[in-house]
Amino acid sequence: MPTLRLALAQINPTVGDLEQNSNLIIEYIEEAETLGADVVAFPELAVTGYPPEDLLLKPHFVSDNVSAAQKIAKSTGHITAIYGFAEPVKDKLYNSAAVTNNQEMVDTYQKVHLPNYGVFDEKRYFEEGSNFPVYDLNGVRFGINVCEDIWFSSGPTNVQSNNGASLIININGSPFNLGKRKERENVLIERSRDNGVYIAYINMVGGQDELVFDGGSLVVGPTGNILMRADQFKEHLYIYDFELPKFQKSSALEESIGSKNISLPQEKKEFKSIPCPTTKTIDQNEEIFQALVLGTRDYVKKCGFSKVLIALSGGIDSSLVAAIAVEALGPENVVGISLPSRFSSSGSKTDAKTLANNLNIKMDAIEIEEIFQVFERSLTDQFNGTMWGVAEENIQSRIRGNLMMALSNKFGFLLLTTGNKSEMAVGYATIYGDMAGGFSVIKDLPKMMVYEICHHINEKYGTDRIPDAILTKPPSAELRSDQKDSDTLPEYEILDAILEKYIEQDLGIEEILKDGFEANIVIQILKLVDLNEYKRRQSAPGIKITSKNFGRDRRMPISNKYRPY
Amino acid sequence: MPTLRLALAQINPTVGDLEQNSNLIIEYIEEAETLGADVVAFPELAVTGYPPEDLLLKPHFVSDNVSAAQKIAKSTGHITAIYGFAEPVKDKLYNSAAVTNNQEMVDTYQKVHLPNYGVFDEKRYFEEGSNFPVYDLNGVRFGINVCEDIWFSSGPTNVQSNNGASLIININGSPFNLGKRKERENVLIERSRDNGVYIAYINMVGGQDELVFDGGSLVVGPTGNILMRADQFKEHLYIYDFELPKFQKSSALEESIGSKNISLPQEKKEFKSIPCPTTKTIDQNEEIFQALVLGTRDYVKKCGFSKVLIALSGGIDSSLVAAIAVEALGPENVVGISLPSRFSSSGSKTDAKTLANNLNIKMDAIEIEEIFQVFERSLTDQFNGTMWGVAEENIQSRIRGNLMMALSNKFGFLLLTTGNKSEMAVGYATIYGDMAGGFSVIKDLPKMMVYEICHHINEKYGTDRIPDAILTKPPSAELRSDQKDSDTLPEYEILDAILEKYIEQDLGIEEILKDGFEANIVIQILKLVDLNEYKRRQSAPGIKITSKNFGRDRRMPISNKYRPY
Repeated sequence: MPTLRLALAQINPTVGDLEQNSNLIIEYIEEAETLGADVVAFPELAVTGYPPEDLLLKPHFVSDNVSAAQKIAKSTGHITAIYGFAEPVKDKLYNSAAVTNNQEMVDTYQKVHLPNYGVFDEKRYFEEGSNFPVYDLNGVRFGINVCEDIWFSSGPTNVQSNNGASLIININGSPFNLGKRKERENVLIERSRDNGVYIAYINMVGGQDELVFDGGSLVVGPTGNILMRADQFKEHLYIYDFELPKFQKSSALEESIGSKNISLPQEKKEFKSIPCPTTKTIDQNEEIFQALVLGTRDYVKKCGFSKVLIALSGGIDSSLVAAIAVEALGPENVVGISLPSRFSSSGSKTDAKTLANNLNIKMDAIEIEEIFQVFERSLTDQFNGTMWGVAEENIQSRIRGNLMMALSNKFGFLLLTTGNKSEMAVGYATIYGDMAGGFSVIKDLPKMMVYEICHHINEKYGTDRIPDAILTKPPSAELRSDQKDSDTLPEYEILDAILEKYIEQDLGIEEILKDGFEANIVIQILKLVDLNEYKRRQSAPGIKITSKNFGRDRRMPISNKYRPY
Repeated sequence: MPTLRLALAQINPTVGDLEQNSNLIIEYIEEAETLGADVVAFPELAVTGYPPEDLLLKPHFVSDNVSAAQKIAKSTGHITAIYGFAEPVKDKLYNSAAVTNNQEMVDTYQKVHLPNYGVFDEKRYFEEGSNFPVYDLNGVRFGINVCEDIWFSSGPTNVQSNNGASLIININGSPFNLGKRKERENVLIERSRDNGVYIAYINMVGGQDELVFDGGSLVVGPTGNILMRADQFKEHLYIYDFELPKFQKSSALEESIGSKNISLPQEKKEFKSIPCPTTKTIDQNEEIFQALVLGTRDYVKKCGFSKVLIALSGGIDSSLVAAIAVEALGPENVVGISLPSRFSSSGSKTDAKTLANNLNIKMDAIEIEEIFQVFERSLTDQFNGTMWGVAEENIQSRIRGNLMMALSNKFGFLLLTTGNKSEMAVGYATIYGDMAGGFSVIKDLPKMMVYEICHHINEKYGTDRIPDAILTKPPSAELRSDQKDSDTLPEYEILDAILEKYIEQDLGIEEILKDGFEANIVIQILKLVDLNEYKRRQSAPGIKITSKNFGRDRRMPISNKYRPY
């Protein structure tokens, strides 16, 4: 049987950086060629980075991306390279895979199924393709398609298989969320089994604003057997040697509307075998941790920063963010600031110190008491006769925000903000206060998951990176005497369960109540979620972890009087 | 010739408020019936408000909206009522117009052309319709379609005309931007002339987050003559009496695929004539002013506030925002706060006072000097050896943000923020400082337009509402000694011209330079625009005025290394 050596280039491009991305692609093409690959495949929109969003509405960007794609084509020698770019055809734009060979762009495949849900807006930019080409190379026939295309049972994969392809190369920009890896594998298993074809699934890796692409490229055999799993969260070139049936023309082959066959000229050379990569997977907590680390590292670096600042309260959220930042950037690039007030417990101060010691990061302390007193004095006339309350709590948080931003502005360090998803959901955070910052690392992590990941980190490193005291004390914002989160919120176990149903599952109150929660608690929570949309709209972006994050994924109106409870 | 009395119900629904919206629709149906209308037409998605965004992903919301639409149907007597709602059919959702008559929903029209560009995301929610019904009523045949449908020359209007309709009722949720009224009229003139039909264009009115629907409903005759222009920015029921040809079946009529004819039972009564409304238009500055006023009023009210706070610097931006707020809410609901520092000119303080007097609003003053000094002292260790600069400037702005938010939190007044589009574009604003606030009134108004609208207000009211001193002094942030905007930015005339080309027209640097700007200035501006995406992402929503605002309209990545200059 003929063999085909495929290189799966699981790369980490940067949105908009056409020059760096094309150089990266060219380097990997050369490496693949050196390794004797017949074909090297890159992710969806590898040239532009994914998602390029409204850059695609700039005609000069599209034209620069075409030049970059052409430059890459010129660099291909005796290898067939496949890489995603934005292809303008007359007044339309396609999400295409370039097929290049011998210094030439031989063909393009135009994505057919354009996702326009969740975080995806592809119908804003692209037209749907309607061609289903297959390619002949050294006696082997294969098809190419892009991301979403493989999710449809009667889509391009089906047509291309019916047209004689024994291998489908599917290129992706598929972002991570919990359970996504398994979901992808299930689709690929079904698709390969139904069509009796091999599928090579090449995914992007890297962080882009809210999204983390987790890589995890795959090869699946025609019986639905997983032959290769690439690492997640790691840029790397993987080699897989296929033994494929020799393609023979037969009258039984379906020549579907829009299908076209192209022969790629290439000389077959012999290379020594390369060991097949891992088929191991990592567990869910490690997936989350690595997503947070990569998402943080890439946001910091792709935005041109090298160091970050974190306000360390001695609480679990800021401790986790610090641990993630240290893993992402190294301890020398993380600075903690403790900002105690009259309401900070002595435990909080020592806990923050212990954490900083454990993580080996620099920590400074700035007391906010004096500033707070001057604020209170300045507002004496206005606040005269009112009760001490939320306004005074928020002043403290905003003093901290101001100090942190002053340090950020002065030294050019990026301020990381530390709120978790449960808080973001119910608005248990001070806008312009603890919400101030450029990147909100654990914004999509419900509080119970925050605990889990902290324990995971401590287990992973075999030491108490996150001090036990931090893990066990009751959560508190410490903005008034003896304050506890549980004064105004239900236990996080209950809160998180309700939030998951309301936000991620979009269930209504009747359905949520079926699970036996107390009605008044559910009503309180739903009200808080709806009321606090305005805060979330002004919050920093953070890493998508769940199936629905606050951001591009959930587009709720602020002026919204739907209150069916 | 048979007559048809049409009531154009230019209403202001609230997103999500299914109960209030359906009551509003029922009231207007009753009023239209009292006035002897044969047909009453409401805007697109009048039941849900527009745009309902991700509320449409909640099955219980969709089902509640259907109940509301059914409740409205039950209220129709001897009148045909047409109103927009979200129509689920199996697992699909349509943007539909309900056609009701004699307590029944007789039919629905499903929108065919779904906008998925600019601020619109309709393909995220809806499927495309494929039916083109026409309706017979008292010897007259008419067609219905929804918004975007009328923008296509070979769309539903064409099919319905060919199928014998002499009137097209087109229901809309069409947001305002500069030049939009003229653009709509041109489309309607062309469409009516090409098809030889009357067109009744019913638009929504009211503010919804970033958008203002300007009403301005229209009736156009079959030769493209404008027969009626409803007021813009005003909720009202307009009556128009059509004399239409009696419909006669003829073999020449095209029965297109998917078209269906429905007869609406109705008894014709005679009513006395009602004078035809205005065909007058208002000028562009008045359009902008009214859009700002309505957008502000509706955001404040629909979010449940009654009073607003504004930090008055004595500068032109905050002065304009105060003037708009007073027009929107009345002077008794607007409170100004002056927050002078060591860098505030004496002119600024007196100018703010004069403005407050002119507008007849309450103004308080809170000095920030003492607070600023404590901040500087608290940061002595950290800032030791550094140059006084942007960090210190921003501390002052954030002290003001903190004070304003403290007052907002204490008294439940909404804080309006006062930055203009030119500043938002180049990041000449302090995040969490002057950018703090719930609604950013003039966020989409370039600085030159700020001046124009101020002059317009002074002309309109025949007095100097905005003091001359404010209009003539050079713009300054007053965050350091003798600071002027022109120290770091080009003149606003040049800045605004460059920004318009880069942001609204999406031109690249080569095309911008063709207009003779200095290259180094253009590069500086483009760099600032790109660098400051992170600030805009955390900014408060503001009213869309131009053809492309910062918000849903312009979705740029933050991590973005495209720098072709």
